[in-house]
Amino acid sequence: APTAALNAKFGVCFSCHGVDGHAILPTYPNLAGQNKDYLVQTLKEFRDGTRPNPIMGPMAKPLSNSDIDQIAMYFADLKPGKK
Amino acid sequence: APTAALNAKFGVCFSCHGVDGHAILPTYPNLAGQNKDYLVQTLKEFRDGTRPNPIMGPMAKPLSNSDIDQIAMYFADLKPGKK
Repeated sequence: APTAALNAKFGVCFSCHGVDGHAILPTYPNLAGQNKDYLVQTLKEFRDGTRPNPIMGPMAKPLSNSDIDQIAMYFADLKPGKK
Repeated sequence: APTAALNAKFGVCFSCHGVDGHAILPTYPNLAGQNKDYLVQTLKEFRDGTRPNPIMGPMAKPLSNSDIDQIAMYFADLKPGKK
């Protein structure tokens, strides 16, 4: 389970991608066990607009590189395939 | 393991995303166990250009809806977390 601090900061991520990294809808991606470098790169693309996305763009906008590193590591470290 | 027919058709997918759905590079996404609906939607976005991507755009261009369904099901059915 995430720390209270992580939950306060990234609760909005968990509301779609799941606190266990398994998405709440089948059209959303599972992130549990995803490659950390891929997650970092993708969040930066969302933030910087090189991968335009109406949902993830605004979500990623306020994130610092350090935030991105933190949440990417969280999801990468989760065990995939729970369902 | 994929059938010979699947391998002939989708070998190019496996060369980056792995025949077991685990990407060959950490900046590529693992697809094993990913939600099928997400994979279908994403491949259609690549194909139709609504998600522009210099690598995946040309890859997805020739795919029929049935091709997309087939490869999405293949990756979704793989066991995630092998490494």
